[in-house]
Amino acid sequence: MQQPAAGTPIRIVLDAMGGDYAPRETVKGAVEALGQHDVEITLVGDQAAVEAELARNDPEGLPIKVVPSTGKIGDDEHPIHALRQKRDASIVVATKLLKSGQADALVTVGSTGAAMASAVMVLGLMEGLDRPCIGGPFLGLAPRTVLVDIGSNVDCRPSLLVSFGALGAVFAKYFLGIENPRVGLLSVGAEEAKGNRQVQESFPLFQQSHLNFVGNVEGMDFFTDRADVIVCDGFVGNILIKFTEGLGSALAPYLHKQLSQLLPPQDVIKIISELWQTTNLPRTMGGPLFGVNGAVILGHGSSKADGICGAIGTAVQYVRLGLMDSMRAELESVHRQRELKV
Amino acid sequence: MQQPAAGTPIRIVLDAMGGDYAPRETVKGAVEALGQHDVEITLVGDQAAVEAELARNDPEGLPIKVVPSTGKIGDDEHPIHALRQKRDASIVVATKLLKSGQADALVTVGSTGAAMASAVMVLGLMEGLDRPCIGGPFLGLAPRTVLVDIGSNVDCRPSLLVSFGALGAVFAKYFLGIENPRVGLLSVGAEEAKGNRQVQESFPLFQQSHLNFVGNVEGMDFFTDRADVIVCDGFVGNILIKFTEGLGSALAPYLHKQLSQLLPPQDVIKIISELWQTTNLPRTMGGPLFGVNGAVILGHGSSKADGICGAIGTAVQYVRLGLMDSMRAELESVHRQRELKV
Repeated sequence: MQQPAAGTPIRIVLDAMGGDYAPRETVKGAVEALGQHDVEITLVGDQAAVEAELARNDPEGLPIKVVPSTGKIGDDEHPIHALRQKRDASIVVATKLLKSGQADALVTVGSTGAAMASAVMVLGLMEGLDRPCIGGPFLGLAPRTVLVDIGSNVDCRPSLLVSFGALGAVFAKYFLGIENPRVGLLSVGAEEAKGNRQVQESFPLFQQSHLNFVGNVEGMDFFTDRADVIVCDGFVGNILIKFTEGLGSALAPYLHKQLSQLLPPQDVIKIISELWQTTNLPRTMGGPLFGVNGAVILGHGSSKADGICGAIGTAVQYVRLGLMDSMRAELESVHRQRELKV
Repeated sequence: MQQPAAGTPIRIVLDAMGGDYAPRETVKGAVEALGQHDVEITLVGDQAAVEAELARNDPEGLPIKVVPSTGKIGDDEHPIHALRQKRDASIVVATKLLKSGQADALVTVGSTGAAMASAVMVLGLMEGLDRPCIGGPFLGLAPRTVLVDIGSNVDCRPSLLVSFGALGAVFAKYFLGIENPRVGLLSVGAEEAKGNRQVQESFPLFQQSHLNFVGNVEGMDFFTDRADVIVCDGFVGNILIKFTEGLGSALAPYLHKQLSQLLPPQDVIKIISELWQTTNLPRTMGGPLFGVNGAVILGHGSSKADGICGAIGTAVQYVRLGLMDSMRAELESVHRQRELKV
């Protein structure tokens, strides 16, 4: 991918139909992003609906346009089947615009499964990888700890976990500015012998890799600064991220009850909404899909305009930093090293 | 096991050497428990050390005695190897006292692995089970949701998960008073097809069982009241419980900073310590080891006197409710049903 020259706006294609509040909030978030970032935006979606929303947001003179699509793929559909049947769905049309070079990055808060499948089919995977993954900081209380995979890749082979670690390390290095990121393998004990079969088989592969591997880490180590990148299977990652969201949502009414007798309402609301954000980081900034040949940023399905705007900001940073090239190079060196050992 | 008659004190044997603050806090907690529960306590440990601690707690006339042991097994030792070498370690002597009928329940906050191994070797497993497990509520925000297994049983066969579900259901029914507890299987989506291979293979076994199976549940469902018992592999359970502890510990300084400008120090401390408890339920009450032929209550290694006292309270309740007999009966019906189907 050619990196856009500094000073050139980043061209974002947004799946305007994706997410629980589309197209109202997606369009609103796009217009907000135009005020905050140096971007040009293409909205992909049902033309009449998207243009009607756009008209509400005073788009006169803004670098934003609409490309029509037909239908959308929901969370409840099987991604691969749906992609075959709905060839003009918003996520497909949007991914093709990215593939054709008419955009620098794709942003969607629609079905994660559909976005991943569409990216794999249209853009293809980076050399040596057999599945893409999702990673990033997921906790405001540990904003510099990257968890990968949170993209529901279950039953991962050990070598795939090493690739996930490599992609997470690139993200930590360039996106978070962490020199030589420490990579840990999530397990039930720090010792090498601790863990399930997957972890035990992965441990030596991580040791042999060129990653800065710090060994097994445990559930509390998201908060102990033992690792910058924590690698797990997407089964565990998905459970952790949803658990954290649920906990944040449960803490809010709990603290409201505790605090509302002691503090004025506006203070209570401020504290609780800040706390909620700390347990819902991905909702406010989105996260890149790692391992596909294109910059794809995924956001939470329940994102509103600020979440869309945040995800567009993440996309801008991702493209400007040239993260895709770094990830490709990193994967190549992982695989070269593996082949040398075989 | 003969259930002690109502009005008869419950005889507790306490591993006085187990945990980070033994024997000072274990002995102190035991004496506290004597004031709160109708119990007789046998302290097992280094005689001189335990008696010295006992003397500090004014034990005159209390139903508490010391049985000597030699050495202890630490968290860093391999449980099985250590048990073979340290045949007179406190946990072994304590388990044998339970086995011989000289106590109704064993309480320990020492190495979980050593306690599990000692229980399996000395007491034996219930019919049809090949590993014991640990379960219980683990979150103050969801005090009636039982998670099982949190005992680090990794790579569990599907049929073992069904047994864990059955044991968790008995606990929910008798200990928490939940009639016909709803059992959910922890996964990455609610649909039957979602999950890793283990979950997908377990799903039909749960459906065929006599459990009140409500299907797959997700990470947020600890807070949504979709299930009373949530079943997972001990790999996931261990990560979740340690993650929650870590989160609670990280929230404390975060909230301290947020609140200390707004509230007097004593209010801040009260709110934070209550919150900490909601993320550290097992530290204050311990939890039973399910599936062994004896009432064994495990507590957190960092328990202080109040945690020991809480775990003793849990032991009393466990014995009085006759939970072991109910669990044995429940496992039998799981296995009878399975054999009928084969």
